[in-house]
Amino acid sequence: MVALAREFGTPLYIFDETTLRAKCQEFRHEFGSRYSHSLVIYACKAFFQRTLARLLDEEGLGLDVVSAGELALARAADFPLDRVYFHGNNKSAQELEMASAWGVGRVVVDNFYELALLQEIAQRRKKVQDILLRLTPGIDPHTHQFITTGTVDSKFGFPGEQWEKALSLALASPALNLLGFHFHLGSSIYEMEPYQKALDVVLAFAEDMRRRHGFKIRELSTGGGFAITYTRDRPTPAIAAYAQAITSSLLGNLHGMEPPRLILEPGRAIVGQAGVALYQVGARKDIPGVRSYVSLDGGMADNIRPALYGARYEAVVANRMDAQGVERVTLAGKFCESGDILIQDIDLPPLKPGDLIAIPASGAYAPAMASNYNASLRPAFIMVSQGQARLIQRRETFDDLMAREVS
Amino acid sequence: MVALAREFGTPLYIFDETTLRAKCQEFRHEFGSRYSHSLVIYACKAFFQRTLARLLDEEGLGLDVVSAGELALARAADFPLDRVYFHGNNKSAQELEMASAWGVGRVVVDNFYELALLQEIAQRRKKVQDILLRLTPGIDPHTHQFITTGTVDSKFGFPGEQWEKALSLALASPALNLLGFHFHLGSSIYEMEPYQKALDVVLAFAEDMRRRHGFKIRELSTGGGFAITYTRDRPTPAIAAYAQAITSSLLGNLHGMEPPRLILEPGRAIVGQAGVALYQVGARKDIPGVRSYVSLDGGMADNIRPALYGARYEAVVANRMDAQGVERVTLAGKFCESGDILIQDIDLPPLKPGDLIAIPASGAYAPAMASNYNASLRPAFIMVSQGQARLIQRRETFDDLMAREVS
Repeated sequence: MVALAREFGTPLYIFDETTLRAKCQEFRHEFGSRYSHSLVIYACKAFFQRTLARLLDEEGLGLDVVSAGELALARAADFPLDRVYFHGNNKSAQELEMASAWGVGRVVVDNFYELALLQEIAQRRKKVQDILLRLTPGIDPHTHQFITTGTVDSKFGFPGEQWEKALSLALASPALNLLGFHFHLGSSIYEMEPYQKALDVVLAFAEDMRRRHGFKIRELSTGGGFAITYTRDRPTPAIAAYAQAITSSLLGNLHGMEPPRLILEPGRAIVGQAGVALYQVGARKDIPGVRSYVSLDGGMADNIRPALYGARYEAVVANRMDAQGVERVTLAGKFCESGDILIQDIDLPPLKPGDLIAIPASGAYAPAMASNYNASLRPAFIMVSQGQARLIQRRETFDDLMAREVS
Repeated sequence: MVALAREFGTPLYIFDETTLRAKCQEFRHEFGSRYSHSLVIYACKAFFQRTLARLLDEEGLGLDVVSAGELALARAADFPLDRVYFHGNNKSAQELEMASAWGVGRVVVDNFYELALLQEIAQRRKKVQDILLRLTPGIDPHTHQFITTGTVDSKFGFPGEQWEKALSLALASPALNLLGFHFHLGSSIYEMEPYQKALDVVLAFAEDMRRRHGFKIRELSTGGGFAITYTRDRPTPAIAAYAQAITSSLLGNLHGMEPPRLILEPGRAIVGQAGVALYQVGARKDIPGVRSYVSLDGGMADNIRPALYGARYEAVVANRMDAQGVERVTLAGKFCESGDILIQDIDLPPLKPGDLIAIPASGAYAPAMASNYNASLRPAFIMVSQGQARLIQRRETFDDLMAREVS
């Protein structure tokens, strides 16, 4: 860490290739060994750039993209676009045109407007587009109370009472090839019951549609939401536990249907723990009897999650891992907002200017949501592997800040 | 708006030159007519780029910058750097070196660490740096309860019991020229009493320091925090009301001291209402008995304020301003998060795909905090004036997204 800070500067986002590959392999193994007809696709919104895209391709994953930008990044990395699933609640006509022209594997249709738009585009382009329908199964993934009214209040997907109409329209369109359904319950789900309950509901619907419309489900995506451990006090289930729950629920609810291909969409669970943020300590402010603030050289511009979601992290003093003693401090960012706090009240060895603070589990969403707030320069990203480090995305420069200005 | 959307695309941020100049002039007039020895400096963190910097210079304002990046932008716009005030809770050695080398007007010193660092840098460079000290007066600006313990829990500034020590150290340093003090109470302050109370406290301290150290205050910055109207149901005080309260409090608390120069630091109040965000309507989702979601082509990547702060906005249908009828909808963004909602529950005429939604008062902080989340392209910014529109910052491209990638 000390050598990396010296070579690449701080703030720095460090990705570990071994962890990335191990997570990909763990997902493929845990699901594939229980249900061979499965495909793991990486949710690019967690973090995406070319080096990562190539690694994911090498590991045999597909991609879940949500915008023309992610699609363009995937294409620039020569990712096989037939393994790409296109999600999103408001895909534009231009984005759907692009998906059709570039041969994107699946469009996950979110709503009636998109269904009509995609049909028109595919028809005009004389193509048949493989699609899934995004269903909102009305399951709250964060409580033991299941909301099964089918009318969950979400901007995403078809509510229960519209599922059959969406299916009928898709089946009636010669330009669309309906393969099955997708649902996504939410983020950082710690329990298995929501997945099982949603599978119950969606497979019962599939079976009903087989009887009433002769529809044969060939693909089913259960989305993502696999939690990762950010702090010691909140450990997460093993990937095997999700795999066991999802595959056994699926196999137990087939009602005699042919087993569809199962699609899994981890994002955070692949990249989160593979990324470590590295900061340098600067100013310190001790308010007697109140609090000690230790300021880092990054903050809410490179990681808005604490301010946005109240996200919690651990931290270590990377240049003095054997340091003795402990004091309670608050790790503040350098941005001009009171809310720019990375970790409130953490016990660390006494810190001094120049110390290096490493924050584990920073790979997901933090860099993906980074801004130039306060005209800050977005950090460099490096990949470490086998004792070697290489730059995969350079730090921004002042010229980058002004590159779009016209006058 | 219809013509602008056609010419520049959406999402689009439209800045009105007349409003920008009028706000600058209103601040200068309202404060200057009551207290001639005053300087209005623009808080760049609200939004900053070259065209705006030149306009602010033409209007005779100074700048409040908080980073090397903002300083570099000001310099690239040929802004006179002697009218620049450098704020921030964790300025790096490199940033202070840059400030010294470039002749930045004032460094607003936040803490003891910075005081020692700046002194060392100025001494080594054989320069005398004009400074203010940032004081935390222990005033809560958002309640009628004043917290006057002097130990307010903030990462910014010197707490009350350290003011005299900071002043003594500054006075003892031949490389630092202490001109006075700065305080900043917070954002969007609707009441005058917090400013008045803080002025009482800080001017009493100045008078005390005159008697005990022979210190003569020559500058006093009361920071920013001037609220703007985002929604019809929450009108804000006139700038004149802030000016009257602040200048009369200052004049009434001089205890025979020479009137110092008064520094005001509006950011949001200059640029907020001068900016309008323009979006296009795409997908629509009606959940019977629950809610209707209308999705726009922007959202939390270009304006994270609703998700981050629960910020509220108004909206109008820009292409059909005379549209009849009303229905309650939720304006959702296109990003893959449930929290990506721009306006929850707003009454608008029935919307259809292709409609243009204008959101007023979007100039401050929204574009400044914009990200590439979901690999989105940050919007274009245009300036309109006298019936003409010109591009001041171009929309991002897919190439921009990949420009920093190395492999």
